[in-house]
Amino acid sequence: MKRGAKLIGVGVGPGDPELLTLKAMRALQEADVIAHFAKAGNASNARAMVASHLRPGIAELELLYPVTTEFPREAPLYCGRMRDFFDASAAAIAARLDAGQTVAVLCEGDPLFYGSYMHLHVRLAPRYPTTVVAGVSGMSGCWSEIGAPIAQGNDVFTVLPATLPQCELERHLAGANSAVVMKLGRNLAKVRAALERAGLLDRAIYVERGTMSDAKAMALTAKKDEQAPYFAVVLVPGWEHRP
Amino acid sequence: MKRGAKLIGVGVGPGDPELLTLKAMRALQEADVIAHFAKAGNASNARAMVASHLRPGIAELELLYPVTTEFPREAPLYCGRMRDFFDASAAAIAARLDAGQTVAVLCEGDPLFYGSYMHLHVRLAPRYPTTVVAGVSGMSGCWSEIGAPIAQGNDVFTVLPATLPQCELERHLAGANSAVVMKLGRNLAKVRAALERAGLLDRAIYVERGTMSDAKAMALTAKKDEQAPYFAVVLVPGWEHRP
Repeated sequence: MKRGAKLIGVGVGPGDPELLTLKAMRALQEADVIAHFAKAGNASNARAMVASHLRPGIAELELLYPVTTEFPREAPLYCGRMRDFFDASAAAIAARLDAGQTVAVLCEGDPLFYGSYMHLHVRLAPRYPTTVVAGVSGMSGCWSEIGAPIAQGNDVFTVLPATLPQCELERHLAGANSAVVMKLGRNLAKVRAALERAGLLDRAIYVERGTMSDAKAMALTAKKDEQAPYFAVVLVPGWEHRP
Repeated sequence: MKRGAKLIGVGVGPGDPELLTLKAMRALQEADVIAHFAKAGNASNARAMVASHLRPGIAELELLYPVTTEFPREAPLYCGRMRDFFDASAAAIAARLDAGQTVAVLCEGDPLFYGSYMHLHVRLAPRYPTTVVAGVSGMSGCWSEIGAPIAQGNDVFTVLPATLPQCELERHLAGANSAVVMKLGRNLAKVRAALERAGLLDRAIYVERGTMSDAKAMALTAKKDEQAPYFAVVLVPGWEHRP
């Protein structure tokens, strides 16, 4: 490893390019290479968000997910292919680091909070100098955009992936004061049923494309179909005892 | 209300002044007045974090908490005094808004996530044009600083105030894959006991003064006393099934 090699996980925030931090800007300026995840055939969202801040001609490393449809995460085939993909991605970045370069990995939202960067971090951080630039999370972008206070005081706040079985969603929702259910995709009908059984349906807010210019938000009870993109979320604001 | 009146809740991030967003910078430039909470006798942390970005001579409104020691939040005296304080603070800001001014309220972390700004938001947002600038949360600053991946994939992530009774802490910890326990203060011994009974003590990381220059982090099992400041947190990273 040459001097100067550095890995930086850069949180670029929830979508609005103005929600980039000064520290993320500096990381982009310092980087010799930027790396970003994308689905084959789709441009990287994270790259689009920082496009105006990139140095002309900066080297780029595109990390293309091998799986484009939703597999159950427990499926051995899915896990094996993803492991190979993260191994290969980490090796590609390690080659740049071994050459003494600074590599900034762009991460939507916050890098160590449900982010793909984490798979590179655990493979590379033990071997190379590494910095993580915290970012505004996607869910924070959502509740801020619609002005919905999410949790306060003694509230218990819980984040639930919609992929959980309905009974588990119900159990966690019943115990939380405030919650975010994420990764809605094909799971909206199940989430709606779990919210109803937990007595929280009336407080639930459906948000699609959070801080993008085409964001959509409505009471979940006002949404009449069960179609939702993968990155849509349901917010359940807490905070019942207000001084 | 005159034209131009605008309330902006500005998240200034977890402590490191570089974790300010571009949008927060713009809000500070646009504001006629900045308002910030502080304890009597202490300078506002949020103000210190943005000091270098303030326009010279900008008007400032200091909102001084009336209660400096920790009361139980349920105590009627505490609730009454805090309600009066938030009412008076909102009225002071409303006077500026009625004069057509733009008021930026500085908020450590993320304004609508356990932030004092929320008390002003619910009083003022129904009556005045309001924008909330999402910020990097304090806890995100902590796990990023120490490079600890907190939650991934199907993990359930839970935020627990350390002020909860031990049995509730235990119950929530036992059901979560990853967790943050905040507001440690005098509650560290209780939190330690709850983590032990939930089988999570070995994974727990104690973090003090998160992204400040004098941050401290260690395995909770390595911390031999039960002294902790109010804003210290315990992180319990999840993510057991890694591809």
